[in-house]
Amino acid sequence: MKITRITDKKVSLRRTIEAGTEEQRKIVQSIISTVREKGDAALFSYTETFDKVSLSSLKVTEDEFSAAYKELDNEMIEIIREAAANIRSFHEKQKRESWISYNDEGTMLGQKITALDAVGVYVPGGTAAYPSSVLMNVIPAQVAGVKRIVITSPPNGQGTLPAGVLVAANELGIAEIYKVGGAQAIAALAYGTESIEPVDKIMGPGNIFVALAKREVFGMVAIDMIAGPSEIVVLSDETARANEIAADLLSQAEHDKNSSSILVTTSMKQAEEVKAEVEKQVAVLPRVEIAKASIEAFGHIYVADDLETAIAVVNELAPEHLEVLTENPLALLNEIKHAGAIFLGRYSSEPIGDYFAGPNHVLPTNGTARFSSPLNVDDFVKKSSIISYSEKAFQNNYAKITKLARLEGLEAHARALEERLK
Amino acid sequence: MKITRITDKKVSLRRTIEAGTEEQRKIVQSIISTVREKGDAALFSYTETFDKVSLSSLKVTEDEFSAAYKELDNEMIEIIREAAANIRSFHEKQKRESWISYNDEGTMLGQKITALDAVGVYVPGGTAAYPSSVLMNVIPAQVAGVKRIVITSPPNGQGTLPAGVLVAANELGIAEIYKVGGAQAIAALAYGTESIEPVDKIMGPGNIFVALAKREVFGMVAIDMIAGPSEIVVLSDETARANEIAADLLSQAEHDKNSSSILVTTSMKQAEEVKAEVEKQVAVLPRVEIAKASIEAFGHIYVADDLETAIAVVNELAPEHLEVLTENPLALLNEIKHAGAIFLGRYSSEPIGDYFAGPNHVLPTNGTARFSSPLNVDDFVKKSSIISYSEKAFQNNYAKITKLARLEGLEAHARALEERLK
Repeated sequence: MKITRITDKKVSLRRTIEAGTEEQRKIVQSIISTVREKGDAALFSYTETFDKVSLSSLKVTEDEFSAAYKELDNEMIEIIREAAANIRSFHEKQKRESWISYNDEGTMLGQKITALDAVGVYVPGGTAAYPSSVLMNVIPAQVAGVKRIVITSPPNGQGTLPAGVLVAANELGIAEIYKVGGAQAIAALAYGTESIEPVDKIMGPGNIFVALAKREVFGMVAIDMIAGPSEIVVLSDETARANEIAADLLSQAEHDKNSSSILVTTSMKQAEEVKAEVEKQVAVLPRVEIAKASIEAFGHIYVADDLETAIAVVNELAPEHLEVLTENPLALLNEIKHAGAIFLGRYSSEPIGDYFAGPNHVLPTNGTARFSSPLNVDDFVKKSSIISYSEKAFQNNYAKITKLARLEGLEAHARALEERLK
Repeated sequence: MKITRITDKKVSLRRTIEAGTEEQRKIVQSIISTVREKGDAALFSYTETFDKVSLSSLKVTEDEFSAAYKELDNEMIEIIREAAANIRSFHEKQKRESWISYNDEGTMLGQKITALDAVGVYVPGGTAAYPSSVLMNVIPAQVAGVKRIVITSPPNGQGTLPAGVLVAANELGIAEIYKVGGAQAIAALAYGTESIEPVDKIMGPGNIFVALAKREVFGMVAIDMIAGPSEIVVLSDETARANEIAADLLSQAEHDKNSSSILVTTSMKQAEEVKAEVEKQVAVLPRVEIAKASIEAFGHIYVADDLETAIAVVNELAPEHLEVLTENPLALLNEIKHAGAIFLGRYSSEPIGDYFAGPNHVLPTNGTARFSSPLNVDDFVKKSSIISYSEKAFQNNYAKITKLARLEGLEAHARALEERLK
């Protein structure tokens, strides 16, 4: 890992977002228009091409759910239930009520909160099976009150989905799961096919084709965010332990060779120790190739002159995951402006938040914590403004409003009010 | 206006979103990359090409603000202040606090709310000058606590901005205003130039080039939404007055020839009367050409068999503006699921919400009220999750978390926790 000394608080570490190549975009556009034109037939055909499996129906069956339960031991199922309960409990605290306020003139103004009708959750396939993705995307939607929740995920070589994913979905009462992945799944969720009714919003991470497809259908439906590779920043002073920091950095590095693992510390001695520990620990990981590639390409240690400078670096990085391993982590909370999730102290190692604690693991990546939030209940509702003017309020105010309308050159706006005087 | 009878509650009126042509997209991509490469020089050059005016600096000067105040009478300035106060008061009610919750194990979980650092507001130029756009976009950002708020707007033929826009901005204390519009303004806000520091989020409506540019930079910065043409739906029963309905429909129609003005009524007699009133009133409007074209292309009257069917039509349309002109509008509020702003009763004519009442006039268009909200304070903040596990909570739970991690094939995640046991 490269070690860089930072002495200036005005460090510039803002990253640009990779938007895919023109060629990838063309492929995605072509997949979307083919799905819009040919429906299910296109889904079956793309699944054969990309997932190398020929399906006769897309929807997961009762038999597949039963088989999944046989693959997991009871203890695992209990842990999934406990994790689900923790996640539900945290997200319940995010719920908001509609409100109305009245004034003396009899005016009534308010905000009505309504759950979305239907959302689609994309659960990636690939090297690892992520039941936690199911829990993290579905539960906030359920807490919000979304009635129809659909999952799509690419089938494996046996034409089914990983047991953990199916059990997690079934535990949450989700029955509408389709074995389709990639840009074709996003197109189906946005526009609908014979088997899949369209949804209003599409959630969940995926590869560059999924990300580009979400960008293409954005506007037709809502999307959560364009997720990038995962990243961790550890902020530490000399009180933290190098072996623990190294282990936490590697827990991100094993995700993907594009993951970033970054340490910002006030101690040069610790920086050297962490570097050595990372080299030692990475060598004995099962996913050593991925973790090593990630650390080599994107691993970085910044050594700051003081904690204030270190925090400035952290805010500039706006990390997805931030661990604060300093003497008094809580005291720094006010200074930390930009981070998706903030883990305080040595017993709050990042994997606790990935699976179990309750807060969402769907987090803004690649510096977008500057302006984006963890997935939350607000993502599954929308608001409507309520405006009710009494006759008295109308009489007291209409002349001001017609004057404003005429300043903007909109005569019919003014006349709409004046029509009430007739 | 075309009159259609609706007898089936399962009416399908969902619209597809116009995403611009491939040619428009190429133009926008080229503008963005030129601005990234050449900075201010590109902005001056595009302003000369598109706005037909040659500028020597982009930033609005003190002299321009002073000149703007001389153009408006004092009463108008007072009305702008009163509107601003109403808008501020409504949005103050949307503010949310950070929260933390504790449990018996000493675990602390929470949600920290932080305002964005910097936002850019695009104020369109063109046929009408919209000071209300300034109020509606800037005030929620100020209420949220955003420190840096920047406005960009295309200059008029005299190389300046409309007086109403400048006065509204100055009343709100906004000093950073740049005379640049179109895709080039969006590129400058996203990537920065010599004169314009980049922002974190870009708000505000615009033409197709502005909309496409926002789509292109989405991800690098946040954007509010891709705004479409304005629309109104009036829901009425036989108690409403045809002349008032017609006047309200025309207040949308005068915006743009792509605006939609739709009546959903339970009375065929009223439908005929409204049709006649629209023809009579439109003829004497200053913007008669625009209003007429809009009514001809997108004006529509649906006559439903009963109120329940009428409400189903409204929810399917998911209108930007909905007026409820029935005998008991409040009683229908629960049934109305999808609408940007809901205006209840005859004294709540839609222009009241455009300028003055307080709720935001930036609303989801083109059916996107199914999943989008009016602009609000939440759009200018982001959340960070807070996770703090005590040693006891860690000891009680780590084994469950390592088991979940291993189910997902992520060994380094499990080892990160186990490293704490050493």
